[in-house]
Amino acid sequence: MNVLSDLLEIQSTSGDESSMREFLLNYINQRKDSWNVCPEIHFGTQLHDCLLLKFGNPRGAVFAHMDTIGFMSRYQNQLIPIGGPEVENGTYLIGEDKFGPIRCRVFEEDGNLFHDFGRKITPGTRLSFEQNVKISENFIQAAYLDNRLGIYNALNLCENLEDGWVVFSTFEEHGGGSVPAILEFIQKTSPIHFALISDITWITDGVLHDEGVVVSIRDKHIPRKKFLDKIIDLAAESNIPYQLEIESSGSSDGREVQFSPYFIDWCFIGAPEDNVHSPKEKVSLSDLDAMLKMYVYLMARL
Amino acid sequence: MNVLSDLLEIQSTSGDESSMREFLLNYINQRKDSWNVCPEIHFGTQLHDCLLLKFGNPRGAVFAHMDTIGFMSRYQNQLIPIGGPEVENGTYLIGEDKFGPIRCRVFEEDGNLFHDFGRKITPGTRLSFEQNVKISENFIQAAYLDNRLGIYNALNLCENLEDGWVVFSTFEEHGGGSVPAILEFIQKTSPIHFALISDITWITDGVLHDEGVVVSIRDKHIPRKKFLDKIIDLAAESNIPYQLEIESSGSSDGREVQFSPYFIDWCFIGAPEDNVHSPKEKVSLSDLDAMLKMYVYLMARL
Amino acid sequence: MNVLSDLLEIQSTSGDESSMREFLLNYINQRKDSWNVCPEIHFGTQLHDCLLLKFGNPRGAVFAHMDTIGFMSRYQNQLIPIGGPEVENGTYLIGEDKFGPIRCRVFEEDGNLFHDFGRKITPGTRLSFEQNVKISENFIQAAYLDNRLGIYNALNLCENLEDGWVVFSTFEEHGGGSVPAILEFIQKTSPIHFALISDITWITDGVLHDEGVVVSIRDKHIPRKKFLDKIIDLAAESNIPYQLEIESSGSSDGREVQFSPYFIDWCFIGAPEDNVHSPKEKVSLSDLDAMLKMYVYLMARL
Repeated sequence: MNVLSDLLEIQSTSGDESSMREFLLNYINQRKDSWNVCPEIHFGTQLHDCLLLKFGNPRGAVFAHMDTIGFMSRYQNQLIPIGGPEVENGTYLIGEDKFGPIRCRVFEEDGNLFHDFGRKITPGTRLSFEQNVKISENFIQAAYLDNRLGIYNALNLCENLEDGWVVFSTFEEHGGGSVPAILEFIQKTSPIHFALISDITWITDGVLHDEGVVVSIRDKHIPRKKFLDKIIDLAAESNIPYQLEIESSGSSDGREVQFSPYFIDWCFIGAPEDNVHSPKEKVSLSDLDAMLKMYVYLMARL
Repeated sequence: MNVLSDLLEIQSTSGDESSMREFLLNYINQRKDSWNVCPEIHFGTQLHDCLLLKFGNPRGAVFAHMDTIGFMSRYQNQLIPIGGPEVENGTYLIGEDKFGPIRCRVFEEDGNLFHDFGRKITPGTRLSFEQNVKISENFIQAAYLDNRLGIYNALNLCENLEDGWVVFSTFEEHGGGSVPAILEFIQKTSPIHFALISDITWITDGVLHDEGVVVSIRDKHIPRKKFLDKIIDLAAESNIPYQLEIESSGSSDGREVQFSPYFIDWCFIGAPEDNVHSPKEKVSLSDLDAMLKMYVYLMARL
Repeated sequence: MNVLSDLLEIQSTSGDESSMREFLLNYINQRKDSWNVCPEIHFGTQLHDCLLLKFGNPRGAVFAHMDTIGFMSRYQNQLIPIGGPEVENGTYLIGEDKFGPIRCRVFEEDGNLFHDFGRKITPGTRLSFEQNVKISENFIQAAYLDNRLGIYNALNLCENLEDGWVVFSTFEEHGGGSVPAILEFIQKTSPIHFALISDITWITDGVLHDEGVVVSIRDKHIPRKKFLDKIIDLAAESNIPYQLEIESSGSSDGREVQFSPYFIDWCFIGAPEDNVHSPKEKVSLSDLDAMLKMYVYLMARL
């Protein structure tokens, strides 16, 4: 899991994913020749900060978002959220502006956010949680497991994938916006009819640690039943541990597949986490293992 | 109204419209040779569960959504809504899971929904209101008049339509998502410049039973005034009873036409109902009759 | 500023922009031969009420919305809002229905809006604030500076623009809907990779009168950092007064660029106003001057 350690140290709040894109591009270029199939790599200004890999003759795509939630400095010592971070008073944030590196604490008062840095932070500076990775026998705990684990899963899939797109998207935590353009590019280049969303979901009263990778029947949005049935049948026959999610809230890159101008089925599949959008996101290693295996299994058969 | 009786008995919550699509396809195949113009029929995996009929050389399209509101079983004995059903405690729901048919009652407590079925229902099972159709001299009352009447109106229009698309869409009650892909298909196949939304609206303090079909000047969204003026002028000269709706809430498939990447005008035209999204939706037969006639009149002249 | 006086007298609530489109088309046809580059003019039924000018070989586009907030008559003496107008009881509204011109006052009671006109107003009639323009040495105050000043800025830019689209859009104040179709047209005709939103923003605790044109780092939506950095670098070297906005709410035509199926960067750039969406919108003339200069500077260099 060396690459995961690296992934967890990179800052990339929504709209500022270029460092993560750069890291992934280097990693992929170093590894791709050892993969079962060497992918076509699509990136550059015309794709903004997104990164797309095309393996063989794709029938479907796997989406892993590169961005994280975070904070932006406003005027004076104010902060405003990027996406929906959970704030516990005194949590350390890090970032950098033109005057140098920043390490400060965040505080909430009457619904407003403040930092305690010793000097003014340039307005518009992006901050994110200071990283603190803890790995025990059964769990990993860190900031931004959502969605560093989804990226890690996508990279793992690359090793043996024969046919399919692997997509690293942007802006997911803050309303989205890159998936429509990614889909337009994919449908013109080598079209697909399904999408799997490689992302991390939430522990709830029906989704538990160590019960396997989550196949989501719905969150705020509902995928098409015929596609869900096919996925669930395959999951059942795979002998890989999985659990079903049925929630009325939450969303993902799947939302933008649902509303796209193409008939593309989608399903969210990922490990569940505790302490969502906090610096202490926590995922069971056995659920992560099931996630890795399920993607390999499904992408070979869908 | 034999076909309407059949339509009212089919379960098809948002995302699970395949039975309704199947029924309509059979019905259309049986009838199409008796219609004034025999349409091209478009359906299949590449269109998901949607169904599109192309008559002659279309200038516009009529959209009727096939899905209904309903419920999905969550964990334990919980339910979560599909779309926005009105819940009265003790209302009977029906459905089916792998263990057999289901008939149970729904209860709301502290904003959460529960069922009283004697066994666990497989998580992710879709339930909908038990049907109870009542037809009197002046009214029809049943579950899902929204949008079985809109489908019925579209089928009636098929008998004499010369030019136009008739579209049976999915997902309308739960945020939409099929209209963007339908429009992409239509604009590539035989493009249109207007859309009429064949759907059922609400009785309000200005929209009343027996005042005729509703031409909607606006709901949450506002169509373009130039197109509305044309529709209202035609409605006025038609001698078919109609009333105008001006509301600040409510939405329809028209929303996704408004936000589509094509310059397509749209207008919602349909009979109004009482007891919206309950098992006792109620529509005046004279308003339904005006709806049928208005669509025939408008589609020949727009 | 003669043309601005004319712009301020034209009624054009969202969905009813044809008078403004007509005025602009006439103005442009009279002036275009005196401009540095004579643009291609795109308009007509196939573009609804939008108006697009293509200068030279565009790399980007400037968007100015033509619509304003306002009111629509409902049933009896009720009104409902178009967009989000600020209502002060007793404010005068004007409009016209088939029975003649209308001048009445608006009142709010328990969250509902009413008018006091002496007769019934035809349901669906559009009303907007009576205009009252006041120009002092340092400020302009009037209804609809948002977005008459954005249009004025776009027209000023036309005089010297060499390469770029100048776009007059519709529906911005009421949820949007024309930008997706405009972008589809632009990308098929002469594609772009950036968009500047020529619109008016808000005075806040960090955005002040007389501090220069606002370059918005974010509102509810966040543009891509790489593009913002380029804009801010250019603004800094321009010596034109500018200030940075970092807000968590507010939106513009930029929203629809963000969610479009094209990789198009965007940034909101405009003067700030007090008394937003009231009949007394107030903008500093020096900020307006900086806005005019900044667009000329940026469009030559981006």
